[in-house]
Amino acid sequence: MKKNISIIGASGYSGAELLKILFCHPDVAVTRVFANSSAGKRVDELYPHFRSLTGLVFEEYSIDKVFNDDLIFIALPSGEAMNVVPALIDAGKKVIDLGGDFRLHEAQLYTKYYHHEHKAASYLTKAVYGLPEWNKKNIPSAQLIANPGCYVTSALLPLLPLIKEDLIEANGIVISSLSGVSGAGRSVSIDLSFTEANETVKAYKAGVHQHTPEIETMLNDFGGQHSTVTFVPHLIPITRGIFSSIFATLKKSISKEQIEWAFEKYYSAAPFVRMTGNAAPEIKHVQNTNFCDIGWKIYERNNQVILHSVIDNLVKGAAGQAVQNMNLMFGFEETKGLR
Amino acid sequence: MKKNISIIGASGYSGAELLKILFCHPDVAVTRVFANSSAGKRVDELYPHFRSLTGLVFEEYSIDKVFNDDLIFIALPSGEAMNVVPALIDAGKKVIDLGGDFRLHEAQLYTKYYHHEHKAASYLTKAVYGLPEWNKKNIPSAQLIANPGCYVTSALLPLLPLIKEDLIEANGIVISSLSGVSGAGRSVSIDLSFTEANETVKAYKAGVHQHTPEIETMLNDFGGQHSTVTFVPHLIPITRGIFSSIFATLKKSISKEQIEWAFEKYYSAAPFVRMTGNAAPEIKHVQNTNFCDIGWKIYERNNQVILHSVIDNLVKGAAGQAVQNMNLMFGFEETKGLR
Amino acid sequence: MKKNISIIGASGYSGAELLKILFCHPDVAVTRVFANSSAGKRVDELYPHFRSLTGLVFEEYSIDKVFNDDLIFIALPSGEAMNVVPALIDAGKKVIDLGGDFRLHEAQLYTKYYHHEHKAASYLTKAVYGLPEWNKKNIPSAQLIANPGCYVTSALLPLLPLIKEDLIEANGIVISSLSGVSGAGRSVSIDLSFTEANETVKAYKAGVHQHTPEIETMLNDFGGQHSTVTFVPHLIPITRGIFSSIFATLKKSISKEQIEWAFEKYYSAAPFVRMTGNAAPEIKHVQNTNFCDIGWKIYERNNQVILHSVIDNLVKGAAGQAVQNMNLMFGFEETKGLR
Amino acid sequence: MKKNISIIGASGYSGAELLKILFCHPDVAVTRVFANSSAGKRVDELYPHFRSLTGLVFEEYSIDKVFNDDLIFIALPSGEAMNVVPALIDAGKKVIDLGGDFRLHEAQLYTKYYHHEHKAASYLTKAVYGLPEWNKKNIPSAQLIANPGCYVTSALLPLLPLIKEDLIEANGIVISSLSGVSGAGRSVSIDLSFTEANETVKAYKAGVHQHTPEIETMLNDFGGQHSTVTFVPHLIPITRGIFSSIFATLKKSISKEQIEWAFEKYYSAAPFVRMTGNAAPEIKHVQNTNFCDIGWKIYERNNQVILHSVIDNLVKGAAGQAVQNMNLMFGFEETKGLR
Repeated sequence: MKKNISIIGASGYSGAELLKILFCHPDVAVTRVFANSSAGKRVDELYPHFRSLTGLVFEEYSIDKVFNDDLIFIALPSGEAMNVVPALIDAGKKVIDLGGDFRLHEAQLYTKYYHHEHKAASYLTKAVYGLPEWNKKNIPSAQLIANPGCYVTSALLPLLPLIKEDLIEANGIVISSLSGVSGAGRSVSIDLSFTEANETVKAYKAGVHQHTPEIETMLNDFGGQHSTVTFVPHLIPITRGIFSSIFATLKKSISKEQIEWAFEKYYSAAPFVRMTGNAAPEIKHVQNTNFCDIGWKIYERNNQVILHSVIDNLVKGAAGQAVQNMNLMFGFEETKGLR
Repeated sequence: MKKNISIIGASGYSGAELLKILFCHPDVAVTRVFANSSAGKRVDELYPHFRSLTGLVFEEYSIDKVFNDDLIFIALPSGEAMNVVPALIDAGKKVIDLGGDFRLHEAQLYTKYYHHEHKAASYLTKAVYGLPEWNKKNIPSAQLIANPGCYVTSALLPLLPLIKEDLIEANGIVISSLSGVSGAGRSVSIDLSFTEANETVKAYKAGVHQHTPEIETMLNDFGGQHSTVTFVPHLIPITRGIFSSIFATLKKSISKEQIEWAFEKYYSAAPFVRMTGNAAPEIKHVQNTNFCDIGWKIYERNNQVILHSVIDNLVKGAAGQAVQNMNLMFGFEETKGLR
Repeated sequence: MKKNISIIGASGYSGAELLKILFCHPDVAVTRVFANSSAGKRVDELYPHFRSLTGLVFEEYSIDKVFNDDLIFIALPSGEAMNVVPALIDAGKKVIDLGGDFRLHEAQLYTKYYHHEHKAASYLTKAVYGLPEWNKKNIPSAQLIANPGCYVTSALLPLLPLIKEDLIEANGIVISSLSGVSGAGRSVSIDLSFTEANETVKAYKAGVHQHTPEIETMLNDFGGQHSTVTFVPHLIPITRGIFSSIFATLKKSISKEQIEWAFEKYYSAAPFVRMTGNAAPEIKHVQNTNFCDIGWKIYERNNQVILHSVIDNLVKGAAGQAVQNMNLMFGFEETKGLR
Repeated sequence: MKKNISIIGASGYSGAELLKILFCHPDVAVTRVFANSSAGKRVDELYPHFRSLTGLVFEEYSIDKVFNDDLIFIALPSGEAMNVVPALIDAGKKVIDLGGDFRLHEAQLYTKYYHHEHKAASYLTKAVYGLPEWNKKNIPSAQLIANPGCYVTSALLPLLPLIKEDLIEANGIVISSLSGVSGAGRSVSIDLSFTEANETVKAYKAGVHQHTPEIETMLNDFGGQHSTVTFVPHLIPITRGIFSSIFATLKKSISKEQIEWAFEKYYSAAPFVRMTGNAAPEIKHVQNTNFCDIGWKIYERNNQVILHSVIDNLVKGAAGQAVQNMNLMFGFEETKGLR
């Protein structure tokens, strides 16, 4: 029997991507889609690529409408999931939150980087971080999954093997990331208009982006080391995809073979991580897929390792990874619906 | 002595383009820039490419501030120029309006296509249409210039020689135009966001676009023939430029030579119209210039002529043509500041 | 049991798209991929997005290697399929040719538009035109399918219902099409370089493009009317997709309802044609899908109908339509592997 | 009287940009343009945006044709200037080389990074590095100018004030640069085709790019410190522009004010360097200009300074800077023809 699924905040780009993936998933059925701002509209009115594929209509959310669902995805803007999660958890529902509300452990850190209070701080400890490659033992039994941030996924996957195996200095890591404009969500702003965003590059929130503490927290949780990173995101004129270039100092006398071995150790069995060998990864090789491709190079002159990683921000960086988590929670094959 | 110029509605893309051109014009000085929504902001705050080039600050408009100016450009959204033009005309000022308010002759037609009443209908007859290639005798002495629409410029320049010389059927002309997104102005809308406008094409207002009656009116005024056109604009993912493909039925036994001769007759002395011969014109050859490049081909099998024209929508389609008009009004060389 | 498939000319964009679709098709297995220029290279070396998904290696083609296959796709450049098709047909193999070699009925017409001789003219009559929406009764039993051209598909699907029902004039139809650059194939040329093709539009082969006779032939075959069209393709700076704007003169007193009824009659049961109602179709709604979306509008002032259609040139315009044909030939569900 | 100028290698993008600038320069005349591969073609055939602006025809180069010129620009691919420069220098001509042949001091270093021998090693000492902001005392009297590399310019201008004033560690500097595709020149390669380069990002030559030793050499020459940098260039889907994000470790107790003061000290009088204050610079603010815009931020948590710089790779990164050097050599105003 199919699992019943609903989505709160289904009208944004992550929500729409979730729908696209779930419609092709053989073992789940999407029962309802909630989007207060678009309530009453058909899904294919807002996203005409769904024309003839679904008759679903966006509804206003209320908790009684999801009582029969087996799992609820939340794809709301940051700061809004905290309004609906507590009641869902108290009601015993399984929840995967694609936003940032339950990724950090401390409400104080949340407030510092998100610039508003956390209204459901006591639920932070209930959240299990949904990075399957590093948390596979906790995800299946989790009730509340905090799905990782897009930039964070692109930073953690290349860094964690090297941190965990103590091959690089944990402090002073430089992460320079490039994101397609869909990463900013389905939002209206002059800066995101085609004329303004085309044929240019914008760096933003250098050093103060909210994904900074998430990266550092997870390098500690899964890598076992306190770390500080310098994270600078840039907006580039593509629709989808993240490219991260990461620079870290090698520990003493670390060889190429040790690094190879570390990636092999953690990812040889990971279905969605691919090492690119001598070639640098490219965004277009992972677009519309759940893959994270990783390449690296030792730069002896400065005793550094240069890491490159690419993901599709809406798939491995959001909806795809959420479905990967769902598969693990339901005991499905990890790759189901994702290839 | 330099002429004094001010711009009302200077914060939009056409206004900014005007500034760029006028700052390099040797014989004019920009005294003030008006933009109510941005009043108090420095020009280079809104448009940082002007950094170090100007200290001008946007101001709220009032008529007393322009009394010493020799000419006022208006680059307001359609429907707003009619609120300021009458007083300026009554005060004896020279005005070039880049918007659509004074391009048509009848208020009724205006209302049909612009969907609001014309509040200054009695001034319509005072406007001189600012297409220098076809109206050079009236522009120098005009007090109020209606600067042509961008799509209109790209349609009239290739069509008028053939209409005027009676080489093509005046009815049933098909004009399929492609415009860069800057044509929609510096406006905020989800449809114009990078993610929505990239990697796609949108047709809009097919047959009902407000440039339709402007094209037909001017084919009559300058070509001497009543004409009906089918005009379909499309938005394509480039920043600047218009490409128009135009299809018209040839009159009986019209030869290639007659068409060549017609273009030669009207444009051999026109500094901003270039015939491309056997090659099709391309947007990138006119970007950031005031040129209109025109190519054409007879398609015997359907007895049609296929015309292609390209302009930069912000230059020959707006600010550049406005300066060309200004040069004629002041008795400057037509190309001054435009090369 | 799965059907065995091989692909000749697998290293181009259409070949790679075929692979992407076939790898997800539940009832076929790709046995071999042929590409003389890339023989010996792994598929995922040329197309790294296949990394970890296939170990296939491009091979040099020889007919003995396909004797056990149930069907052979050919995705060679125009002029090359004619070298391999005769032997395959003589050997009794089923073939789907994605190129233009077997789409026209007369070798003479082929030579006129393709500028070289047809070396397998006697096989032209064996080819069945693979437009499933109009040729479903002949495709299942065909041995050789000529898969339609990309532009042609975008023109025929909107035009055929109106031609067939005698609602529009068959002559003088104007087809203005915009294509993404992938339509030019995986070819190397300065004109197709990013710097040259970005931020511009190029019209090419106006009136002489090889898809012109294909459109006219099929309007006759399936619409039952001799027709002449004016077809002008344009290259625009997007990767994938075709947008066609089509202009035709209505026959006397044709109503909106008759046109609606014609589209309903032919497409209400077609799984890959979607009518967009009042909205104009957009390329991004069909990207990476096998859909053709169609919108239309009557323009009374010129007694014309304006049609808009969109497809993904590599899917409904090539590989997707080829798989749709394959499904019909094997008796599979028409949509299998295509949703 | 106007100075006479010729250009060797005029058919590439830098050559064409030089022509665009020089045609508007009031005090020079372009006498001849050399391009062996395009000899006999009109300039406006290869670059139709010059249509009606010039009748120049590309010629095959020979030294006798430039004897009457006051200065020769060389815009050849790397490795070719060394074939023509010695004879020009011996003949007493002034030369500005836009390529990389004369930028490094040691032939050995050249060979290591450019992968071929230097055939004019004895002329390396004659070259004056053409970074006007840092070498203004030597440029006016130079006979041979080595015009800086595009990436190099974007790296040196933000770094030099901080190196020279000893505010940052000279080793371990990370330079992550993004370049538009025109930076690869007017070359034909599948990787640079629109379909391959659009909607993606490529890192290339990480740590081994030939601009690495140029950056380090000039940090030593003008900053007075031996330095090692980790330089990673990326290709992004825009036509023009470079965005560099640079990460350096602050020396002990360096304050924000000291950094401000250093930039003020070196650039307050520089006409083409603009500090962006709190805003990050953007490529689109410098496109088609000779400006380098610089922004910076201290990141205390890692004791680093984050620098951002932007230039147009074809202007300040090539042709514009070359003209700036020419102005200094001829004693013209530094900004002449560049605003």
